[in-house]
Amino acid sequence: MKDSHSKAVVLLSGGLDSSTTLAIALKKGFEVHALTVRYGQRHHAELEASRRIADYFKVAGHKMIDLDLRTFGGSALTAPIEVPKDRSLQEILTDIPITYIPARNTIFLSFALAWAEILGAQDIFIGVNALDYSGYPDCRPKFIKAFEKTANLGTKAGVEGRKFKIHTPLITMTKARIIKKGLELGVDFSLTSTCYDPFQDGAACGRCDACLLRLKGFAEAGLTDPIKYLHEA
Amino acid sequence: MKDSHSKAVVLLSGGLDSSTTLAIALKKGFEVHALTVRYGQRHHAELEASRRIADYFKVAGHKMIDLDLRTFGGSALTAPIEVPKDRSLQEILTDIPITYIPARNTIFLSFALAWAEILGAQDIFIGVNALDYSGYPDCRPKFIKAFEKTANLGTKAGVEGRKFKIHTPLITMTKARIIKKGLELGVDFSLTSTCYDPFQDGAACGRCDACLLRLKGFAEAGLTDPIKYLHEA
Repeated sequence: MKDSHSKAVVLLSGGLDSSTTLAIALKKGFEVHALTVRYGQRHHAELEASRRIADYFKVAGHKMIDLDLRTFGGSALTAPIEVPKDRSLQEILTDIPITYIPARNTIFLSFALAWAEILGAQDIFIGVNALDYSGYPDCRPKFIKAFEKTANLGTKAGVEGRKFKIHTPLITMTKARIIKKGLELGVDFSLTSTCYDPFQDGAACGRCDACLLRLKGFAEAGLTDPIKYLHEA
Repeated sequence: MKDSHSKAVVLLSGGLDSSTTLAIALKKGFEVHALTVRYGQRHHAELEASRRIADYFKVAGHKMIDLDLRTFGGSALTAPIEVPKDRSLQEILTDIPITYIPARNTIFLSFALAWAEILGAQDIFIGVNALDYSGYPDCRPKFIKAFEKTANLGTKAGVEGRKFKIHTPLITMTKARIIKKGLELGVDFSLTSTCYDPFQDGAACGRCDACLLRLKGFAEAGLTDPIKYLHEA
């Protein structure tokens, strides 16, 4: 347990993983400051979910920062390219998909670092996962470790000895394990949003990589996902 | 010399250092894509200067990306805190000043990395300087090296073997040397803007850390700075 004055910045997308990560940071006793990056997504379901989760857990602070990654183009999540559907688990877990966003976690962690330094926080939480990780290189432990080193060399706080730590509590968990952990810590998964391509009313597609991994996780945990799907998998 | 198809992303603030860096990248034969980050500065002189320099050198591309670091507060360059004036060289070169922006170069390099990956570029140029470096930790060679490692671990291109290189051609140069190098490569310094606190008409204050280092550089190079100052130092 940290003393009650330790602040942490938690990257919160509003999905299952980041919501569970936030609950873990709270459980560890941190005063949580949630950071959501609006990066030119084609939908706003995730942003609304992040607001619901921040409210639900009554976090000390929640900031949304705008970044228009569409300026650079190059990803199905920010540019007008079709989100892939109905891929096999084999494909999902081995290829780097078209939904890959160049340098995404490097950018997100940089923002979290800036805010942490201003808040006087040394702890940053990110819900990356190297197991069900959809092939994203910036979800791997060695990337996180390299970023942590960069953070400590590139900031006034780091140089002055207030070292930053990047916490990745989910990094080796299966999706099923993450879901069980979240439930144990009181996460209401009906508030979360994971789908890459949700319908207007916020219903998940059930067919994109993110939905397929989420549904697989609930199935393996022996649980039913409380969110609404238009195409049940 | 690189072959004429090699692209590079150059971080361009519109100041003396980044303009010289851009000229160096061109001289090396790169197709230059300049990136200017609008980060909630209180003035726009720098952004106009970046546009002038990009036009002057007829670069292949110039993007401006918006990032409102004011969301986080915490620096004289983004929040309403007085820019320090008339500091001694001793103070300028040893303290980390109030104008320090948390994680600034980490954020800027992350953006450059994202754009480089999309462009298929492997080379990123940044005009940091570890000598006349105003005490910013994110201008040091070991920070740059750590970021380069992070970049290669956290991107699809890096994982697939198209390694990124962060070029810092000015890192060990004195300001006087940078100015001479820039002139040699055709940089028109009258187009650049360095001042942290310029007047409405774009004239430099001549008293902030950035102006004092710039004026010292011109003096040591035996040259006269072509830009307009309201307070001659």
